[in-house]
Amino acid sequence: MTDSPFRGVIPPVVIPLTEKRQLDLEALERSINRMIDAGVDGLFFLGSSGEVAFLTDAQRYHVLQEAIAMVHGRVPVLTGIIDMETMRVVDQAKRATGYGVDALVATAPFYALGGPKEVERHFRAIREHTDLPLFAYDLPACVHTKLDPTMLVRLGEDGVLQGVKDSSGDDVSFRWLCLQNEDAGHPLQVLTGHEVVVDGAYLGGADGSVPGLANIDPASYVEQWRAAQAGDWERVREIQNHLARLMYVTREVKATVGFGAGVGAFKTALWQMGVFNTNQMREPVCALEGEDVEQIVAVLKRAGLMDADAPIRQAHWDACPVSPGAPACK
Amino acid sequence: MTDSPFRGVIPPVVIPLTEKRQLDLEALERSINRMIDAGVDGLFFLGSSGEVAFLTDAQRYHVLQEAIAMVHGRVPVLTGIIDMETMRVVDQAKRATGYGVDALVATAPFYALGGPKEVERHFRAIREHTDLPLFAYDLPACVHTKLDPTMLVRLGEDGVLQGVKDSSGDDVSFRWLCLQNEDAGHPLQVLTGHEVVVDGAYLGGADGSVPGLANIDPASYVEQWRAAQAGDWERVREIQNHLARLMYVTREVKATVGFGAGVGAFKTALWQMGVFNTNQMREPVCALEGEDVEQIVAVLKRAGLMDADAPIRQAHWDACPVSPGAPACK
Amino acid sequence: MTDSPFRGVIPPVVIPLTEKRQLDLEALERSINRMIDAGVDGLFFLGSSGEVAFLTDAQRYHVLQEAIAMVHGRVPVLTGIIDMETMRVVDQAKRATGYGVDALVATAPFYALGGPKEVERHFRAIREHTDLPLFAYDLPACVHTKLDPTMLVRLGEDGVLQGVKDSSGDDVSFRWLCLQNEDAGHPLQVLTGHEVVVDGAYLGGADGSVPGLANIDPASYVEQWRAAQAGDWERVREIQNHLARLMYVTREVKATVGFGAGVGAFKTALWQMGVFNTNQMREPVCALEGEDVEQIVAVLKRAGLMDADAPIRQAHWDACPVSPGAPACK
Amino acid sequence: MTDSPFRGVIPPVVIPLTEKRQLDLEALERSINRMIDAGVDGLFFLGSSGEVAFLTDAQRYHVLQEAIAMVHGRVPVLTGIIDMETMRVVDQAKRATGYGVDALVATAPFYALGGPKEVERHFRAIREHTDLPLFAYDLPACVHTKLDPTMLVRLGEDGVLQGVKDSSGDDVSFRWLCLQNEDAGHPLQVLTGHEVVVDGAYLGGADGSVPGLANIDPASYVEQWRAAQAGDWERVREIQNHLARLMYVTREVKATVGFGAGVGAFKTALWQMGVFNTNQMREPVCALEGEDVEQIVAVLKRAGLMDADAPIRQAHWDACPVSPGAPACK
Repeated sequence: MTDSPFRGVIPPVVIPLTEKRQLDLEALERSINRMIDAGVDGLFFLGSSGEVAFLTDAQRYHVLQEAIAMVHGRVPVLTGIIDMETMRVVDQAKRATGYGVDALVATAPFYALGGPKEVERHFRAIREHTDLPLFAYDLPACVHTKLDPTMLVRLGEDGVLQGVKDSSGDDVSFRWLCLQNEDAGHPLQVLTGHEVVVDGAYLGGADGSVPGLANIDPASYVEQWRAAQAGDWERVREIQNHLARLMYVTREVKATVGFGAGVGAFKTALWQMGVFNTNQMREPVCALEGEDVEQIVAVLKRAGLMDADAPIRQAHWDACPVSPGAPACK
Repeated sequence: MTDSPFRGVIPPVVIPLTEKRQLDLEALERSINRMIDAGVDGLFFLGSSGEVAFLTDAQRYHVLQEAIAMVHGRVPVLTGIIDMETMRVVDQAKRATGYGVDALVATAPFYALGGPKEVERHFRAIREHTDLPLFAYDLPACVHTKLDPTMLVRLGEDGVLQGVKDSSGDDVSFRWLCLQNEDAGHPLQVLTGHEVVVDGAYLGGADGSVPGLANIDPASYVEQWRAAQAGDWERVREIQNHLARLMYVTREVKATVGFGAGVGAFKTALWQMGVFNTNQMREPVCALEGEDVEQIVAVLKRAGLMDADAPIRQAHWDACPVSPGAPACK
Repeated sequence: MTDSPFRGVIPPVVIPLTEKRQLDLEALERSINRMIDAGVDGLFFLGSSGEVAFLTDAQRYHVLQEAIAMVHGRVPVLTGIIDMETMRVVDQAKRATGYGVDALVATAPFYALGGPKEVERHFRAIREHTDLPLFAYDLPACVHTKLDPTMLVRLGEDGVLQGVKDSSGDDVSFRWLCLQNEDAGHPLQVLTGHEVVVDGAYLGGADGSVPGLANIDPASYVEQWRAAQAGDWERVREIQNHLARLMYVTREVKATVGFGAGVGAFKTALWQMGVFNTNQMREPVCALEGEDVEQIVAVLKRAGLMDADAPIRQAHWDACPVSPGAPACK
Repeated sequence: MTDSPFRGVIPPVVIPLTEKRQLDLEALERSINRMIDAGVDGLFFLGSSGEVAFLTDAQRYHVLQEAIAMVHGRVPVLTGIIDMETMRVVDQAKRATGYGVDALVATAPFYALGGPKEVERHFRAIREHTDLPLFAYDLPACVHTKLDPTMLVRLGEDGVLQGVKDSSGDDVSFRWLCLQNEDAGHPLQVLTGHEVVVDGAYLGGADGSVPGLANIDPASYVEQWRAAQAGDWERVREIQNHLARLMYVTREVKATVGFGAGVGAFKTALWQMGVFNTNQMREPVCALEGEDVEQIVAVLKRAGLMDADAPIRQAHWDACPVSPGAPACK
């Protein structure tokens, strides 16, 4: 273990919208405070769950500016600098740096096809253009490239990377990353983004987690991290079982797949729990409705996050708006 | 056949760089003029071959502004508005519109995961925000979503799309797209991006092609299109065989894969033929060197695009620069 | 062009079953005769469309023995020797040889993972164990390995392979295969399995086709091949457009995906046309029913393969049987 | 926890060959005895590591017959019944049953494409034809289908399946499988095949493991299982770290990929440790040589499984034989 400030539970912050699908600052502050009050160790903005792909640059830095003011230094702030290839990412890095973030998080290049040589040069080039701590974000589901643990540790030893947020879902690679990092003197802070099996990641040596589900239940993730630090693995496992069942919110969705089902379920849960004011989504994604909402509420009640007799909140907005004159979307 | 201005041979323009990896305006003008003089029917900027993923927004619109001035209305100009999700694409559309382009080209959303519902809403939303002709760019290799022909024709009938640039490599889907489009009264201009088998696409009913290889040999693609219009299929096939062999430039590359091998080979060929001044590539991609260059020259000579006794041009630049102080890239 | 007996239209034979899902010899003979009478140049048994994956070895060689007797030397017979790895394929080769087939068709190894070295050794080892002409079957959808054209031509030059049945759907690779084969003196007979775009394959130099759809409309494929031989490309294209639309039978299926939709649609069409007595499928696939059947009939009528006022034949069997005592299949 | 006999450490048995690539019964018996003496709870034959894809049926049942005689009832024996589609698998099941195995292990159907409906019917149909305990083998790397946990538990509740061997590498799905299985009253024995992260699987509720690496170090896996039963998670983790590093034997291989690298490394390690007499592989795979062998020995020495000064054993056989008259394999 190191004394890095980037350890423990660092949720990727889900962004609330108003009925009109504008940024809902009031709900955002409530959600940020709820997580900080629960004891999280940092917050990650402009990640995949934070709608980074859906926001124009103007919207991205609006979110970041407001969020940093709300956090007000209580915990470290990491931010995604997500874009296609190196110099676009560097552009994002420069812009984000001006807002006072504590660390940057970049994926492998995407859209244009390349190989491992280009991936390694990409991270080295980003490092050349910024001084902030840099995390590699291993997210093959979105960028279609898996980061090699040996390369990551080499980049750690060379001072290019300060950490890794591993959302790859490849637990073998993750274990090897932890071991190789340890053997190299722990140059990297290794965080798992795999919220359903954080217990295994902690047992395997992770320095922390970046669980989207912590937006819904931050207290459990915080308690779990502390139990892991204390070596109380039965408790760690027990909490994980609770959280793994809570993650069923994303499994029950019938209306769509991918982001609209995953983050859509998170937003719906936060809305039903009263943290968010709506479950609205960014264009082109529709908000969840009807039976999907009911199933999510049922999961929340079974998990004890809503009272058994709490009513389902009803939407007073258009879950799937089309612009005036547009053909109706089938 | 329609009287749309978007038909025939519309090359995606490859961008030349100087030794220092800056935009080489002199070579760009030479290449643009060479293609227009050969008789191409349009030019496509800021596509995948046009480095769109590698350019910052400032660089993108610098390229576009200069290119449009160079073309000077001689042929229609299409431009890519490539970004992750809907509102980022709309941002690009608005910006591109200001530069006086004739049509916009957008892919399916990428990075965030979605399903067919989101893809259709995406194109409908872009249409709401712009008045220019809009082409869907079917490019699953980069965006990891295949566009469904039935959806494309529906979007054509609804006035959302004016055409499709199909680089999917799925010739069955392409044929069905052509047939369904015909049955619907030809609302879409259907262009193939599949430069090695344009003859089959023309036979199948394509309205034109967007062949990256036409940067190297525009005259052959123009002659092929005219032969197809005249129904001289033996000549169409004969030219295609020449072009398919010319495409071996991309097959011989050993140093890397993907964009660096494909567009890297195109740039190397254009450099060796004297159209470009270098074969430099954007960060993080390295320029081709040594044996890769020799193999490309050999293909060009066999294809009659270089004299058999022409010497190989030598590079006087760093093919793979690293910034000062950066660890050497292995 | 060579004087190989393996050229022209060589349909992969779809296998009819009785109501009880037993081999229907009467319908098989009718279908075989119908194709031979239409003028096909060969028949391919025990391919993917021929249920090879679903048949026990006893069933495979029962089909083959009966089929060879029915063909009775009128056209050459190719047979699939489909199994996981080399020595299992060799076992199939030895057994098939005893039945008097004219050529063998083998895929790349599957199930166990390997690389190109193993693929090449696989074909070389099969050659060591048999004297019959050997075709490589390029079918990445099923075996998850794409065969490299350069390797295929090398194996042709070395006398290992006599041909390729390319069902890869990669038309660029197919074109390069044709060109490289030509440059090497045409050691391989190159057949396309891509029934929707046979015209492009013929234009690109294919020696023939192996179209599953020819079970339904063999006459059109035969006429198309003859038109291609005569250089009448407008007619080739026209017939292809008819066939591409006929292939919609496989696109309308809602009940399932993959083999059950594709070969299921072929069987349903043959049943409705009176060639087959049922549309039954092998365990675990269910026969198509209801609306799926109606849609297929509509396609057949539009294509002129059924009279516009012909009634839909009704099933008198269980499309999806379960064994006694088995829980009902949802 | 149940009182099922199928729990704890159940290695998939790797098969030794002689120099001439014949089954090496002497080495097989030594390896089996070594594992049983180390305390393993069962043995799994004819799995992927057990060369099932490479063996003719005659070879499969030769291996099985000999193995069962060697085990002689000391531990339960599971056997793979691996084949393409349902009735071929049933054929294997019937044959295996005659040899006196204790349980059968079947994958999803492969080669022919299908959907979830066919997968479920497949397992139900196998159950109809056999009385032995049946395990589903979740192995998407080989069969290209992921088994859904909800379906698996349903098949468990319906008495179709008695267990699951999960080699899917999807630890989220695995956790949900454990939880849903628990909530259903534990109808399934859930075993992980993921040897590098068995500790996380045990923490998550696995009933045991099927680690290929246990052929090399069975004692550590046995000790780890016992520590997990005793709740000593620090010890479980410590052993896992040792085993995860031992698995580097498969990471160092340069000569090939897939089975030849993975099982090839296991055989090479067993040969160098004196358990096997050679590291020979089945056609078309070559045995590892040279530097690959040296790297594997280095890993074994670092892991304490070979003495630091033990010499490297040298091969006296052809690692990559070709049949007489065959062109040399490049």
